[in-house]
Amino acid sequence: MQQTTYTIPVHIPNLKFLHSPLPFPLEAGGVLPELTIAYHTYGTLNAERNNVIWVCHALTANSNVADWWAGLFGPGNVFDPARHFIVCANILGSCYGTTGPRSINPATGKAYGLDFPLVTIRDWAAAHDLLRKHLDIREVALCIGGSCGGHQVLEMAHLLPKEIKKMALLVTSARETAWAIAIHEAQRMAMQADPSFYEDKDTGGAAGMRAARGMGLVTYRTFDAYQHDQTDTDDKLDDLKAASYIRYQGVKLERRFYAQCYWYLSKALDSHHVGRGRGGAATALAMLDMPALVLSIDTDLLIPSSQQQFLAAHLPQAEFVMLESAYGHDGFLIETERIGRILKKFGN
Amino acid sequence: MQQTTYTIPVHIPNLKFLHSPLPFPLEAGGVLPELTIAYHTYGTLNAERNNVIWVCHALTANSNVADWWAGLFGPGNVFDPARHFIVCANILGSCYGTTGPRSINPATGKAYGLDFPLVTIRDWAAAHDLLRKHLDIREVALCIGGSCGGHQVLEMAHLLPKEIKKMALLVTSARETAWAIAIHEAQRMAMQADPSFYEDKDTGGAAGMRAARGMGLVTYRTFDAYQHDQTDTDDKLDDLKAASYIRYQGVKLERRFYAQCYWYLSKALDSHHVGRGRGGAATALAMLDMPALVLSIDTDLLIPSSQQQFLAAHLPQAEFVMLESAYGHDGFLIETERIGRILKKFGN
Repeated sequence: MQQTTYTIPVHIPNLKFLHSPLPFPLEAGGVLPELTIAYHTYGTLNAERNNVIWVCHALTANSNVADWWAGLFGPGNVFDPARHFIVCANILGSCYGTTGPRSINPATGKAYGLDFPLVTIRDWAAAHDLLRKHLDIREVALCIGGSCGGHQVLEMAHLLPKEIKKMALLVTSARETAWAIAIHEAQRMAMQADPSFYEDKDTGGAAGMRAARGMGLVTYRTFDAYQHDQTDTDDKLDDLKAASYIRYQGVKLERRFYAQCYWYLSKALDSHHVGRGRGGAATALAMLDMPALVLSIDTDLLIPSSQQQFLAAHLPQAEFVMLESAYGHDGFLIETERIGRILKKFGN
Repeated sequence: MQQTTYTIPVHIPNLKFLHSPLPFPLEAGGVLPELTIAYHTYGTLNAERNNVIWVCHALTANSNVADWWAGLFGPGNVFDPARHFIVCANILGSCYGTTGPRSINPATGKAYGLDFPLVTIRDWAAAHDLLRKHLDIREVALCIGGSCGGHQVLEMAHLLPKEIKKMALLVTSARETAWAIAIHEAQRMAMQADPSFYEDKDTGGAAGMRAARGMGLVTYRTFDAYQHDQTDTDDKLDDLKAASYIRYQGVKLERRFYAQCYWYLSKALDSHHVGRGRGGAATALAMLDMPALVLSIDTDLLIPSSQQQFLAAHLPQAEFVMLESAYGHDGFLIETERIGRILKKFGN
């Protein structure tokens, strides 16, 4: 049974839950009266307690990392439950088991909806640290994440500078860029243009979310990839291939995600700034002295190489790797064979 | 008085109208029962009738080219009413005076709305050719356009291969790319997520159009330009600069454009394919043997240089110029001083 306070839109096998009945204060000033964290673990903690791989997932993913990052996690892969104790937790604001806008607000008995407070990446990290304590993990051999998963890795590293021994930052940035924030705002405007977004139901804002997903997608791959895969081969005037692809991807997300959650997660992304209250990004990065793998993809349009170069320039122990890939930003989810080799070389 | 069949959302000075009472057949199979073309002219046709500069405007622009392309058009500029007879006409499907979705359908006495037929870039060209005949223009010294204005230049050149003596194609493509079509579909989905889009009113779909505009805007400039201009200088968690910029630009378009028109124009863009029914793009370009200036902007994300290189490779008399600019696709509207010099050198 998926024990949470709302209906998860898809079945996720082997989901576990940690419930914290205590109020959870948020960086932006709000307070969640209680907290549920949905998570997965694979393998077992060894006697030396030093085999933990902590994974931070990207925006609309879930805690079942062995499913969505199968090329890196699982038997025979670089992260193998036979050797590692792998932990991945669902982020705050999501709809995959952790507390989010569709959770029941105990104060009203109804879903939070748009009364859900603003959460930040630091809140994601602090929430997951409750799980770390619950699992009695005192050392994280490697904390790894791609895209906004990497944002969270940076905040986990600030929260746990001694406990985290290494980190792997894939296609991420020290701060959300103006470009990404602009895209997110247009996505939120699309969701808000759909009046059902404001209704108290899980499916509210679905049409707006489909449009928002389409906007996101064009930055996940590349111009050339679209040209190659989505160009019509006939002389059609309408019902073009690229348009069908975008509609199809919108429907796919609608079947597995809630618009209010998508909206709040995009706000969390926008808040990302590792240097906030720490003297700026460069200074904040200089404080993180564990070995760090910084991976860039040459065709990434969403979080381009300039961002990872900044990370590598300011992290004291960074190893920068540029991956050539035709897949753009999405490459971190696709190029698992090559990324696996890079991670193995990095020492796992 | 702005004599048209609908209310133009902004005042455009010196607008002229050509009304054609005859049915106008469209490429996709529809027929418009009548046609109005709004246009501007500047200067006078000389005795030799060889001083015509014909301008094709971009998506949400209007026929007042001396206003929106002021750096190229006007006294002392490369195109000067003292020497040239400059013509610019509003495109079919727009809301700046030419027949479009907000025009009155004579069959019903109401605005066409979403009953407006699908129009293509070839229809834009054919409609404007009625104006050319009306003005008794037999020779066009230069036909010029940027972005989808360039799409139309290519179709004008196919329609009038003898009459058009030279063409200037700025940041354009032989065919709408899958990347651009994907963006347009997401934009249309945003407009359609707004139920008022389906209502019979000029302001219908405004919230959706604001979102759609935001989506477009992120591809008009560059990652670096957003980073430079729209990054917050403090530690704010919300109400970020880039997001405000996108909202503001959405409102700006809402004040001057109608969502149903924006929707239909994006469909026209998607239909663009100079090679349709002509044996493919390369063959179709090879037929256009007038001298052609092909201008590319190195940072253009929307219609990147690969597209202009294709044009230059297949047009028999192409001169390719790469402009380095920080402004991305929008550069064709901003870098007018440098573009003016390039056009002067090209022979105008």
